[in-house]
Amino acid sequence: MNIQSKFSDKVINLNASAIREIFKLIGKPGIISFAGGAPAAEGFPANRLSDISKQILRDRGGVALQYGITEGYAPLREWVKERLAEQEIGGDYDETVIVSGGQQGIDLAAHSLINAGDVVICEEPSFIGGLNAFRSYNAEICGAPIEPDGIDVVAVENILKQKKNVKFIYTIPTFQNPTGITMSLEKRKKLLSLAKEYDVMIMEDNPYGELRFEGEDIPTIKSMDTEGRVIYIGSFSKILSPGLRVGFVCADASLVDRMVVCKQTSDVHTNVFAQMLVHEFVTQYSIDEHIENLCGLYGKRCRKMIKCIKNYFPNEVTFTRPQGGLFIFCTMPDGVDSREIMERALKKNVAFVPGATTMIDDKAVYSTFRLNYSNMSSEKIELGIKMLGNVLWNEI
Amino acid sequence: MNIQSKFSDKVINLNASAIREIFKLIGKPGIISFAGGAPAAEGFPANRLSDISKQILRDRGGVALQYGITEGYAPLREWVKERLAEQEIGGDYDETVIVSGGQQGIDLAAHSLINAGDVVICEEPSFIGGLNAFRSYNAEICGAPIEPDGIDVVAVENILKQKKNVKFIYTIPTFQNPTGITMSLEKRKKLLSLAKEYDVMIMEDNPYGELRFEGEDIPTIKSMDTEGRVIYIGSFSKILSPGLRVGFVCADASLVDRMVVCKQTSDVHTNVFAQMLVHEFVTQYSIDEHIENLCGLYGKRCRKMIKCIKNYFPNEVTFTRPQGGLFIFCTMPDGVDSREIMERALKKNVAFVPGATTMIDDKAVYSTFRLNYSNMSSEKIELGIKMLGNVLWNEI
Repeated sequence: MNIQSKFSDKVINLNASAIREIFKLIGKPGIISFAGGAPAAEGFPANRLSDISKQILRDRGGVALQYGITEGYAPLREWVKERLAEQEIGGDYDETVIVSGGQQGIDLAAHSLINAGDVVICEEPSFIGGLNAFRSYNAEICGAPIEPDGIDVVAVENILKQKKNVKFIYTIPTFQNPTGITMSLEKRKKLLSLAKEYDVMIMEDNPYGELRFEGEDIPTIKSMDTEGRVIYIGSFSKILSPGLRVGFVCADASLVDRMVVCKQTSDVHTNVFAQMLVHEFVTQYSIDEHIENLCGLYGKRCRKMIKCIKNYFPNEVTFTRPQGGLFIFCTMPDGVDSREIMERALKKNVAFVPGATTMIDDKAVYSTFRLNYSNMSSEKIELGIKMLGNVLWNEI
Repeated sequence: MNIQSKFSDKVINLNASAIREIFKLIGKPGIISFAGGAPAAEGFPANRLSDISKQILRDRGGVALQYGITEGYAPLREWVKERLAEQEIGGDYDETVIVSGGQQGIDLAAHSLINAGDVVICEEPSFIGGLNAFRSYNAEICGAPIEPDGIDVVAVENILKQKKNVKFIYTIPTFQNPTGITMSLEKRKKLLSLAKEYDVMIMEDNPYGELRFEGEDIPTIKSMDTEGRVIYIGSFSKILSPGLRVGFVCADASLVDRMVVCKQTSDVHTNVFAQMLVHEFVTQYSIDEHIENLCGLYGKRCRKMIKCIKNYFPNEVTFTRPQGGLFIFCTMPDGVDSREIMERALKKNVAFVPGATTMIDDKAVYSTFRLNYSNMSSEKIELGIKMLGNVLWNEI
């Protein structure tokens, strides 16, 4: 039978294969992968979680292995609410729910908000998982360029003026994926005031915000929200473990109510055992201390990578200098196709994410690429950037 | 701000609150709940899983806590494929992926297939989680009544004749939710031949199929599929643990490819630790032996409930006699509203699922209700059915 003729028009042209294929490379023996966005495995508190997991299943297996409620395991949900309150996130009009990783927060909000043809404004480049989620609900995606201090707010206003059906602005304001850039306080304020003026929502995706190893914290956009206009998405993936798939969303209560109905039809609830593991860990140990250790590690690896880039890359290649998060973004001279560079690099066993997969028009030629520094040892960063430098010297 | 005005038309009228509220009652102290579809907690192999979980995180924490690939943890996926092959499920044209519970399988297939206005044919009554998933993609749902030997195939053919844009037939052929009814072999064959004749797909949802405590197995529809027309959805929720959220889908490879792209935007991948737990359990122990024990327990509880219904319910209440699964479906005389009966029953601390939540038009009056027997002890079944009988004697 002709199955393809049955596909919905929402997903028939979705192209996630590039990033998925790169993702699989992580497991290829001998490869030095600066692709992916994986935290350092040596940063996982595996032994502590091992003891906790045994305890939970032995003492409370009947809860951990049973169905749970869609909104999340109550003690974890309460803990998240308190922590968000400390960060001045969440008003009386807001509600918080546990989701199966930050990606599910994006998806459930998109499902709850987007009608076919609605416009979503995003940073360009942006996170492929966000872009594809919006595409899968037939949104029209309009990009505003990223500048060194964050999204180009003039470009955002121009889109808002031209397009009458903008639903929300999708932004990763802190240590953005893929650029590592952080939006200035002024631009955060301006973005929120634009959202009010044109009556659109903001989706603030903040998986990396706590991973600051340099500079001073900047208030989240959500902390300045006074009316439930901002959907805030957080995650334990980068500060504890991505494999457990536990994240959270704080947003207007009526929107959260719709997201919960969508979650009921999506995966019923988030793995209860995983939620209990996370809750026991943050209760028995200091998550702040754990994050501080991660920041120490990632800061070291980021500085190492920048030093290697300076040593081994041609001067024509420019790059961002993140104060936290997981990524450095590089730009080669105009006209160089980073997908071609990646093919050459892969032959030398080095992988990265070519810029095209982070752009709205992912078929065009881009001279940019993303490097991840969190998941490779200092030695491998030296070796990999050196090899990549050789490729660049030959090809540019 | 007026957030409601922002909701997508797909989800604005989704009404899952009834079943969600009932779900929450499970935790109310003192209540005897025949609502929900939860397995017996005493059937969870909690101690075995406790030891396994400690082992996995201690020895392979770097894998269990890290990002995984979207298609699923490879060893579990292979194990599932082999088990399905033993059940004659899966052709060369098919592919199998791990999903975050059977519900996600339904959702990903719906997302991949349904355009707004497409028709989905389902049994009526049916599973609310399925119906709401189809509604959330703006499908038109057409119901064919359930008869004692399964879906009314004449009604299905009439819908196929009238509607030109049917995408698939959604069926739970074995120990159906909510009725407990099993479709005969003849009807399974007829349904598949109708699907071929009218070129529509079949979604075979089979979470209960292995929980047979009486009678002989009937081949799945998927085992008779020769061209990838049937989407087969299975789950570890009812045979091992629902809290872990691990299920699987076997379907045409090109459809699975689209579902994987949707899964990438939905939750990236299923909890890796949970997949490893399931895989270690089925490797270290016999899942068939475990299922046999569950069937012994559920058969006993089902027979107990039927005996109590005969003893305590008025004769005017008819009911199904399932040979497996988790549910008995009761029908009161026409005109009695099972929602009103539920309110009375709740005052006596007894809960069940009123028929309305299992129907396409969930606002109408139905005299039916669903009873779950898996999750209550023999003593509580006696007590609860007796109290429910008192309510029925007073109200009918």
